[in-house]
Amino acid sequence: MQIDIQFQPFPPNPSLHPDRVVVVIDVLRATSVMVHAMSQGALEIIPVATVEEAFQRAQVFLRDAILLGGERKSEKIPGFDLGNSPREYIAEKVKGKRLILTTTNGTKAFHLVSSESDILVGSFFNMGAIAQRCLEVNKDILIFPSGDEGNFSLEDTICGGMLIELLTKKRESPITLTDASQCAQILYQRFKANLLEAFHLSYHGKELVRRGFGEDLVTCAQIDMTEIVPEFKDGVIRVSQTQKAGCRVQNAE
Amino acid sequence: MQIDIQFQPFPPNPSLHPDRVVVVIDVLRATSVMVHAMSQGALEIIPVATVEEAFQRAQVFLRDAILLGGERKSEKIPGFDLGNSPREYIAEKVKGKRLILTTTNGTKAFHLVSSESDILVGSFFNMGAIAQRCLEVNKDILIFPSGDEGNFSLEDTICGGMLIELLTKKRESPITLTDASQCAQILYQRFKANLLEAFHLSYHGKELVRRGFGEDLVTCAQIDMTEIVPEFKDGVIRVSQTQKAGCRVQNAE
Repeated sequence: MQIDIQFQPFPPNPSLHPDRVVVVIDVLRATSVMVHAMSQGALEIIPVATVEEAFQRAQVFLRDAILLGGERKSEKIPGFDLGNSPREYIAEKVKGKRLILTTTNGTKAFHLVSSESDILVGSFFNMGAIAQRCLEVNKDILIFPSGDEGNFSLEDTICGGMLIELLTKKRESPITLTDASQCAQILYQRFKANLLEAFHLSYHGKELVRRGFGEDLVTCAQIDMTEIVPEFKDGVIRVSQTQKAGCRVQNAE
Repeated sequence: MQIDIQFQPFPPNPSLHPDRVVVVIDVLRATSVMVHAMSQGALEIIPVATVEEAFQRAQVFLRDAILLGGERKSEKIPGFDLGNSPREYIAEKVKGKRLILTTTNGTKAFHLVSSESDILVGSFFNMGAIAQRCLEVNKDILIFPSGDEGNFSLEDTICGGMLIELLTKKRESPITLTDASQCAQILYQRFKANLLEAFHLSYHGKELVRRGFGEDLVTCAQIDMTEIVPEFKDGVIRVSQTQKAGCRVQNAE
């Protein structure tokens, strides 16, 4: 098993690795929203790249059956039902609903990797479950941080580093780490006792605090809140029927 | 002052930062060779992308006045005078000579950044001097690791992290670090007491050991051997006349 991590979000080359698992991560906040929403009983999530596409896709469904969610410049989009705070995506709102989501980095990342075969949705909320799934599937892994408008993201890389740390500790046979995945593991080791410290050092974390979303940093730093492993396939994120709903994240207060 | 580091070698966008210093790093081994050769009195270095170009450029000069150096798959190129071990580039061979150099990653990196205005050549041999120059110039900095055939390079990033560490400690006014440059600094802090450990963990370090160049790892881990700050301008690497020649690296034995 080889684990690689791609630090900048451009389309990877699946022909080089036809049979691997890709784990998409956007801790602040898209994949945290997705994992939490699915754990709260959302039916499915359709990640789209643009606001226009979100409204367009919504027209196909009954208005009551869907929710429009996401952000631009961290803020809720005019005409949308929900913003991009995981705490908004609770069972009372999302259970049984189809979500159409568009965010600056996270939802675009799914389109960059869409030609891959196995695509999982990861955040600190479910990284233990992702590691367990990766052990069962036993394929090479590409961790795909969504980045920050094309740039390296500290918090996403640390989250990827948590997956690497869990796998190197749990797997009995050896794992090959690239230079990049060694780097991610070292970053995780540096911050694992205080993920919030890392969030507050990161560019995007500072931006969220500046815009009044500091509470979301506390929320998104919670680890292993759910056993849910959402999968992205044919443009839609779903959870297999055998998986149970998880716990709701704690309020940050 | 902002310090950024670009983890993968693709052309940066100088129009976004028209006035900054770029520091190119290929610790194993191209920029270590360059810094050492210049400290040993080489007249200038012409980095070229291909072997064919090296032979072509050589035709312009008297054969005695030039040396062809570099590697493919870590080995000396047939018909070349020197390989890619810094220890080969000693005064007895290089003093007063013009070098034409081609390597897998390092010399290509110079062509990727060639539209930038201030381009410095860095390695562990001269990172203290590079830091001093950056403090004097007082511009934004882009650290440009040459990478490993397009991939993230652990050893180059750690060397960039040393520059960040030196500048954040020496500069009195604050420095803005991107997520990527914070990552590089953390990697340097993790390995600064044992750079060789990092080299032996890195993909390229392992490759060099496998091919019999393990001694070069010991050589390239030596810090602050010279005050030389080579500059790349108009396709040529030179050292300004005011700089003195530095020390020769120690033998690894």
